[in-house]
Amino acid sequence: MTHSSFNPPRRTLMGPGPSDISPQVLAALSKPTIGHLDPLFIGMMDELKSLMQYAFQTKNEITLAVSAPGSAGMETCFVNLVEPGETVIVCINGVFGMRMKENVERLGATAVVVDGEWGRAVDPVQLETCLKAHPEAKFVAFVHAETSTGALSDAKTLCAIAKQHDCLTIVDAVTSLGGVELRVDDWQIDAIYSGSQKCLSCVPGLSPVSFSPAAVAKIKSRKTKVQSWFLDQTLVMDYWADNAGGKRSYHHTAPVNSLYALHESLLNLYNEGLENAWKRHAEQHKVLAAGLAELGIKFIVPESERLPQLNAVYIPEGVDDVKVRNYLLNEFNLEIGAGLGAFAGKAWRIGLMGYSAKSENVLLCLAALKQALKQ
Amino acid sequence: MTHSSFNPPRRTLMGPGPSDISPQVLAALSKPTIGHLDPLFIGMMDELKSLMQYAFQTKNEITLAVSAPGSAGMETCFVNLVEPGETVIVCINGVFGMRMKENVERLGATAVVVDGEWGRAVDPVQLETCLKAHPEAKFVAFVHAETSTGALSDAKTLCAIAKQHDCLTIVDAVTSLGGVELRVDDWQIDAIYSGSQKCLSCVPGLSPVSFSPAAVAKIKSRKTKVQSWFLDQTLVMDYWADNAGGKRSYHHTAPVNSLYALHESLLNLYNEGLENAWKRHAEQHKVLAAGLAELGIKFIVPESERLPQLNAVYIPEGVDDVKVRNYLLNEFNLEIGAGLGAFAGKAWRIGLMGYSAKSENVLLCLAALKQALKQ
Repeated sequence: MTHSSFNPPRRTLMGPGPSDISPQVLAALSKPTIGHLDPLFIGMMDELKSLMQYAFQTKNEITLAVSAPGSAGMETCFVNLVEPGETVIVCINGVFGMRMKENVERLGATAVVVDGEWGRAVDPVQLETCLKAHPEAKFVAFVHAETSTGALSDAKTLCAIAKQHDCLTIVDAVTSLGGVELRVDDWQIDAIYSGSQKCLSCVPGLSPVSFSPAAVAKIKSRKTKVQSWFLDQTLVMDYWADNAGGKRSYHHTAPVNSLYALHESLLNLYNEGLENAWKRHAEQHKVLAAGLAELGIKFIVPESERLPQLNAVYIPEGVDDVKVRNYLLNEFNLEIGAGLGAFAGKAWRIGLMGYSAKSENVLLCLAALKQALKQ
Repeated sequence: MTHSSFNPPRRTLMGPGPSDISPQVLAALSKPTIGHLDPLFIGMMDELKSLMQYAFQTKNEITLAVSAPGSAGMETCFVNLVEPGETVIVCINGVFGMRMKENVERLGATAVVVDGEWGRAVDPVQLETCLKAHPEAKFVAFVHAETSTGALSDAKTLCAIAKQHDCLTIVDAVTSLGGVELRVDDWQIDAIYSGSQKCLSCVPGLSPVSFSPAAVAKIKSRKTKVQSWFLDQTLVMDYWADNAGGKRSYHHTAPVNSLYALHESLLNLYNEGLENAWKRHAEQHKVLAAGLAELGIKFIVPESERLPQLNAVYIPEGVDDVKVRNYLLNEFNLEIGAGLGAFAGKAWRIGLMGYSAKSENVLLCLAALKQALKQ
């Protein structure tokens, strides 16, 4: 095997993530590496925390970036909050709800499933019925924006119901953060995780998480050790949060450069303003949806439950899935996503996430799809 | 709080990692992001695997980069190989051996400790005695290069002893890979993990790991599920290894840009040649050690057990630890490491890792230390 430097082409990323990354974020990524205990780096982390609090709309003191992708953020929430033997109600309406169930079971807890329809929002009535039948449940977990189906659930209502039954809420915001309205404190979310590579338009590999004071109290009152040393927040908190003496405890070497990039991408979001970002995603989605309708392409999700940033559509009858996606990639350097789980081979997922949610991308995607369908 | 872009200075990184990063690696890091299922990316991963196999000196098919730092690589090895109730002999001669024990216990297995001296290599005789006393042990785990003390253990001998007792071997090579001789296949290492930010001189955040066929067989014969979904190698293997149809299964979104950087840093190592890299580390260490002796600074570890890439030395009597390190950082943008664990406040750790192991760094460090000690 001969070896040489890898030179990727410039793709337009309109799949389910990673999304396009702005030149500023890529530039921030490659700034000089400094030590993870360098006072200047600690200062950057403080600012990063404040920017994550803004994005999440929270005052939660424990708001930090897990040094691994969103699925590790999911696991962080479950293994820290839930102890073996406890009951978690898991709402499933796609692949990522199923993964939540897997997480619950692997830590020795019991998952009670609210079995929802794929391609639809989680049904609040179903959740309420389940909560009444399971007074032993301590947690309600659901996915805000199901990346596998393109469905947006009503997180505010679901959390309000969970709270009426004294449950802590665990929310997957991997695809929602920065793309649609999300208010952690107002909506009473106790534990939330996201991913860097979706609507934040940062490089993949980091998972912003946030824990409410009630969640932190639950973690601190654990009777058993967290099963994962790497994800144990009782240890990680000492690195991210100031102790009495301002001293940071070493836990693991932070992914310094990726955190530079996350800082810069959140700064972009802050400068644009959250509401403006949500509006931009909604507007670009409308243009895309209208164009797709013209091409005779149908959405999986009913209009009122659709994610603007993740457009899951049925592959038209008689059209070759792989052939079209390869054509888009090879002819136009355009990536759209394949179907996942129950929709594998049946759907495409067209992302309009973060820096990808812009007019030129929508136009390119529609024109390229039109041409691909003619082949 | 006002927010602005973060602009780190250029530091010379001579702590225990991250180490200096070459301009080519930083440039690779910020190349355009492409999808984690893009055929071009999959091609890059194949080449990356082959470069990791070279660095580890192994033909192991399951050689990949965990999408998280070295401590997650450690956890990956333990939670996949070891099942609850099994016995692992853990050799402890520093902080990272202690962390191994923590990992073993958190997964419900039993750790039998070979209690070594901090600042010394693991004693093969002690290991042998322990193995004889514990015929139930299935694994022997130890740290090749103890980053907390600067001691190098004889991995070849330790593995040979473990094999005589039919144990699988789990080796921490976070600080050793690329800096000192390491031969996974020849030395009969069954599971090994490293870190990107030490002698590979890549950005922090990735952990190269490799599993021998015997280790893979052990993983595949598990009776219980791996407790961590994120680190479950039975799932991750399907993404990194070719299946029958050449199809890659999605597990989590790979940290695309960090993997570009790892590829480039391993390419640097490949082009230099492993033996040359080991020699360079040894040579730079000799110059540094001679200079430190002139300054009256003493090593913790006896000469024959010293790591060239991590020089742990006693802080001279009457010298203020923090004052000196701050002086080096503020006056010369030079980072050296503090002591860790039993050596906190008592030692400095001077790294000569990867791209940092060069004449100009050694010269700067010695001159700067000399000046600092005069203050």
